[in-house]
Amino acid sequence: MTTTLENWAAQIRAGDVRAIARAVSAIENQTSDAEALLKALFPYTGRACRVGITGAPGTGKSTLVDRLADHYRAEKKSVGIIAVDPSSPFTGGAILGDRIRMQGHAGDEGIFIRSMATRGYLGGLAQAAGDTALLLDAAGKDTILVETVGVGQGEIEIVRLADCTIVVLVPGMGDDVQSLKAGLMEIADIFVVNKCDREGAGQFEQRLRAILQIVPECDGWKPPVVRTVATEGQGIDELAHQIAAFRQHFASAPNRSAREIAYWKEWLLRLLHARLIERVATHISESDFDALASEVATRKKDPYAAVNEILYRL
Amino acid sequence: MTTTLENWAAQIRAGDVRAIARAVSAIENQTSDAEALLKALFPYTGRACRVGITGAPGTGKSTLVDRLADHYRAEKKSVGIIAVDPSSPFTGGAILGDRIRMQGHAGDEGIFIRSMATRGYLGGLAQAAGDTALLLDAAGKDTILVETVGVGQGEIEIVRLADCTIVVLVPGMGDDVQSLKAGLMEIADIFVVNKCDREGAGQFEQRLRAILQIVPECDGWKPPVVRTVATEGQGIDELAHQIAAFRQHFASAPNRSAREIAYWKEWLLRLLHARLIERVATHISESDFDALASEVATRKKDPYAAVNEILYRL
Repeated sequence: MTTTLENWAAQIRAGDVRAIARAVSAIENQTSDAEALLKALFPYTGRACRVGITGAPGTGKSTLVDRLADHYRAEKKSVGIIAVDPSSPFTGGAILGDRIRMQGHAGDEGIFIRSMATRGYLGGLAQAAGDTALLLDAAGKDTILVETVGVGQGEIEIVRLADCTIVVLVPGMGDDVQSLKAGLMEIADIFVVNKCDREGAGQFEQRLRAILQIVPECDGWKPPVVRTVATEGQGIDELAHQIAAFRQHFASAPNRSAREIAYWKEWLLRLLHARLIERVATHISESDFDALASEVATRKKDPYAAVNEILYRL
Repeated sequence: MTTTLENWAAQIRAGDVRAIARAVSAIENQTSDAEALLKALFPYTGRACRVGITGAPGTGKSTLVDRLADHYRAEKKSVGIIAVDPSSPFTGGAILGDRIRMQGHAGDEGIFIRSMATRGYLGGLAQAAGDTALLLDAAGKDTILVETVGVGQGEIEIVRLADCTIVVLVPGMGDDVQSLKAGLMEIADIFVVNKCDREGAGQFEQRLRAILQIVPECDGWKPPVVRTVATEGQGIDELAHQIAAFRQHFASAPNRSAREIAYWKEWLLRLLHARLIERVATHISESDFDALASEVATRKKDPYAAVNEILYRL
């Protein structure tokens, strides 16, 4: 390890905001520094509480995450926020929202916010988000909030990086269905019914609880339902309490070590996939890929020959 | 291409059951013959109607698939059935069920049934199922029914091989919730309410229709709900009618070619992933992989070093 890298790692461990921001950029740009840095930092990870927050667009996730961050800051705990939007390109919305949110916490060194968006047709976003979570863990953040729009499999992969997953629902037609659509019921450790000052909230919560009554427990944990009005700060204390209870429950679980190994096995497979696909991405552009798919669709080329062409270029 | 391979391909195209069975085994065992064979057969694919059928365990998928096969056989159409169980190892249940089902169609050359089960920790089941579907397509099967237990992401990947996806639900508590859990609402082109002679079936169907009313149409298609009692053969004609209607709808859709290209793009990425992972599997055993994950979980090794070790072995 060079002295520069050692210094950089030390600055990150001390929580230096610029050093952290530079490291996130290195992760996103997949520079050779990034891996060396993460290797140096890895022994200092494993302390932070990683919380994943997901839900359909419009459920108020960002506001909820901000309020939760305020809650932890009031307890003098440091917070890292990783906001992931797999559906939008790396311009516009995500970055704009980022800056607006940063202003709300301006001057507070105890909170670090970063948005990440799509990484192109070959994916890799989950890996970048996972690396960033490790980075913030090593940087001493007590809680890391990973926020993602829950609409597909990519998002599910991202929340699986967390120890504890919160699914945000909202009373009312569209959202209700949206949330059922994406397989979110399966991954929730805690449910939040946000905007619960809306009409029909009681009925919605009742329906949700009825469904949950017949969902089997997982290792003795039954997902609780927390009612919030994030814009008013209502229910945030209770949510933080449930997160702590969840963490406590599994910290003392008899199968804790098996859970950890399974977690890292999935992590290694994802990283392996990302590394292999990185090699592909440097050799074939998306338009070339589209052209190949088009030739296969019209039976001008078989899919095995198309993939062999790609492998040959490696 | 050797004469033997040419002969083999010709036998398959003629629908020879033994030649087809031998090819499926070659696909499963990833022999070098398999790819050469599939390349030779690919130009003759694209004619079959691929129908994916999924749903929670106990919804009666297998019976439904058998009845649907009978329906097509009565119309003198040939049928291929691929029954995929990602959750069970390649012994016991799947194979036993396979033999029992084969007996029901004994002596009928117009129907080919094959079960496939888990391919180990690195996956690859979706790819094997996809290759088998192409094989049966080239073998002249008019309809290919791909049946899978819908409980997770692996299963969703498998039904995406099909042109038309049927989600099977059953009235009653457990199944009801199970089906919501796995993100199945999102992928259904047609819903089947099976065992609809059960108590509460009307109420269940009503609830399902209420949810579907607010699900947006996809390219002008709104998923219909078909009531069946598969064990009695009830509703099977209507189901076959809806499958034909779905196929007709998209055959004339203006974005048909874009849909095809998107389909093959996904296929190529899956095949690429499978090819890359195959290389890994030949160099590292599952127990070695577990040992690495365990070292990472205890911070004895960082994940980047662990993955580099695997990549180095390639």
